[in-house]
Amino acid sequence: MSLPSSVTVHAPATIANVGCGFDVLGICLTAPYDTVRLTRRDQPGLVIRHLDNYDLPTDPYRNVAGAALLALLREVPEPIGFEVEITKGIRPGSGIGSSAASAAGAVVAANALLGNRFDNKKLVDLAMYGEAVASGVRHADNIAPAVCGGFTLVRAVQPVLDVVALPAPPLWVAVVHPQFEVKTREARAVLPTQVPLSLAVRQWANVGGLVAGFLTHDSELISRALEDYIVEPARAALIPGLADAKQRALAAGALGGGISGSGPSIFMLNQNEATAHAAAEAMGRVYQKMGIEFHLHVGPIASEGARVVSVN
Amino acid sequence: MSLPSSVTVHAPATIANVGCGFDVLGICLTAPYDTVRLTRRDQPGLVIRHLDNYDLPTDPYRNVAGAALLALLREVPEPIGFEVEITKGIRPGSGIGSSAASAAGAVVAANALLGNRFDNKKLVDLAMYGEAVASGVRHADNIAPAVCGGFTLVRAVQPVLDVVALPAPPLWVAVVHPQFEVKTREARAVLPTQVPLSLAVRQWANVGGLVAGFLTHDSELISRALEDYIVEPARAALIPGLADAKQRALAAGALGGGISGSGPSIFMLNQNEATAHAAAEAMGRVYQKMGIEFHLHVGPIASEGARVVSVN
Repeated sequence: MSLPSSVTVHAPATIANVGCGFDVLGICLTAPYDTVRLTRRDQPGLVIRHLDNYDLPTDPYRNVAGAALLALLREVPEPIGFEVEITKGIRPGSGIGSSAASAAGAVVAANALLGNRFDNKKLVDLAMYGEAVASGVRHADNIAPAVCGGFTLVRAVQPVLDVVALPAPPLWVAVVHPQFEVKTREARAVLPTQVPLSLAVRQWANVGGLVAGFLTHDSELISRALEDYIVEPARAALIPGLADAKQRALAAGALGGGISGSGPSIFMLNQNEATAHAAAEAMGRVYQKMGIEFHLHVGPIASEGARVVSVN
Repeated sequence: MSLPSSVTVHAPATIANVGCGFDVLGICLTAPYDTVRLTRRDQPGLVIRHLDNYDLPTDPYRNVAGAALLALLREVPEPIGFEVEITKGIRPGSGIGSSAASAAGAVVAANALLGNRFDNKKLVDLAMYGEAVASGVRHADNIAPAVCGGFTLVRAVQPVLDVVALPAPPLWVAVVHPQFEVKTREARAVLPTQVPLSLAVRQWANVGGLVAGFLTHDSELISRALEDYIVEPARAALIPGLADAKQRALAAGALGGGISGSGPSIFMLNQNEATAHAAAEAMGRVYQKMGIEFHLHVGPIASEGARVVSVN
């Protein structure tokens, strides 16, 4: 059986942090997604094109998919390269894992072209080089769910990457993306460097509770455990409308939620599709009243991450 | 059907913290256990006797079982009281939940005499009054597993007690109790009041990992996630032989472990009975060489907590 010459992957948006789980927890959405098409070249090097209007760099060293693929090619003995066509379905800077999706999609597509020689853990490790281009840090909290799907725990990045991939809890996610910018650097700068031990204990109680709630499908526990005592209070001032949007979504029946990644998107978890739509619309009305443009996304937590949708 | 007049309960030892889960996680052992026998009196008040040689207070307000029962009797409209006979099987000050066992055993026995009108959450809440007598703090990290069995997460104590009772993972516990004293007050005093956010993140990643490992029976994940970056490093100097005992137990095949509660006992988790015995003996040899008396305990994580063993 010969290997394909061209592969197209859908690489979904993801929610990092998931309330209490700063830098550690992530969940995978079904949409929006980036479409990444890779075609094998019989000579080394990458040629990258963006079929969208976001004016992203196409220099392989500065493109998130490019950086991830360069890392992957360093592990491949054959003198091959790729033509890369990326169509962003996820708006850059939205806080729902836009750069992670392109990087994850690229390595998943390359892996399919190479006969699936890398496992998911290795693909996460490679795609993290893309995140380093986007944010300066090789972090995995969006990459892990974008590759593995479901619900992921990045237990450690150093000295050895330790990604725990867990089954998707049967929940629906409502996301509002208000159209203002939160600079990742600023979102990092407002974080405390030291936290009271008493507060850290409450936070890790919630992380344990959220993991238990997801694995045992205990919606009430999930609802109680989502609360972030440390990071969201520090970042709330960067997201106008946050408190109001959360409150309206809770009133519409959502279980809980918070800032997606470092924002500006806000996510809420819900027990079913109808509640997720109601929560999204409730959040949208908050931004409508504030005169801020927004986009809404509603879908289940996806059991699968970036996946091959066509092969030639 | 008339209610019994006398009930005997076995109330087991417990491990609080469980590595990374300071103040939050607990597991229940099968042995050692306290035996608590309650007999109904048709007049208010408690009469407490200790059938052991530990010279513990028998004044109901100063006895851990007494304080828990007084809290319980405040919730009961009938003008009744109890005769209480306690036989400590768990040495006071061992760090494996000795006071929690007596308090838990007392309220479980009283509940049986009263037709089981209280649920486990309420019993934990009541037994915590016993812990307040013992340590000055109404904490639940030993009480919860002593009442509920298995593996417990105390997600919150204030404003509302939130205990998550989870199934016992199929693991065996090795405990060494070296015969020196660690004062709970001193063990609290050495803790940092502030911790670096970066370290807190690593700790909550481990708490999430340990909960996931316990629920999915992933021994390798449990082994990686047990590590405590914050509390054990601060307390290690209070437990001579700790590092050596852990290292020898790991070499004997244990998955990991650490200080039980605030010590001096050290626990190690193991995949099977044979490894647990080997780990216990390896830790015992460390204290033998140091010329420190010790006791060993080996048993599975118990699925059941304090339980009625006879009724009259």
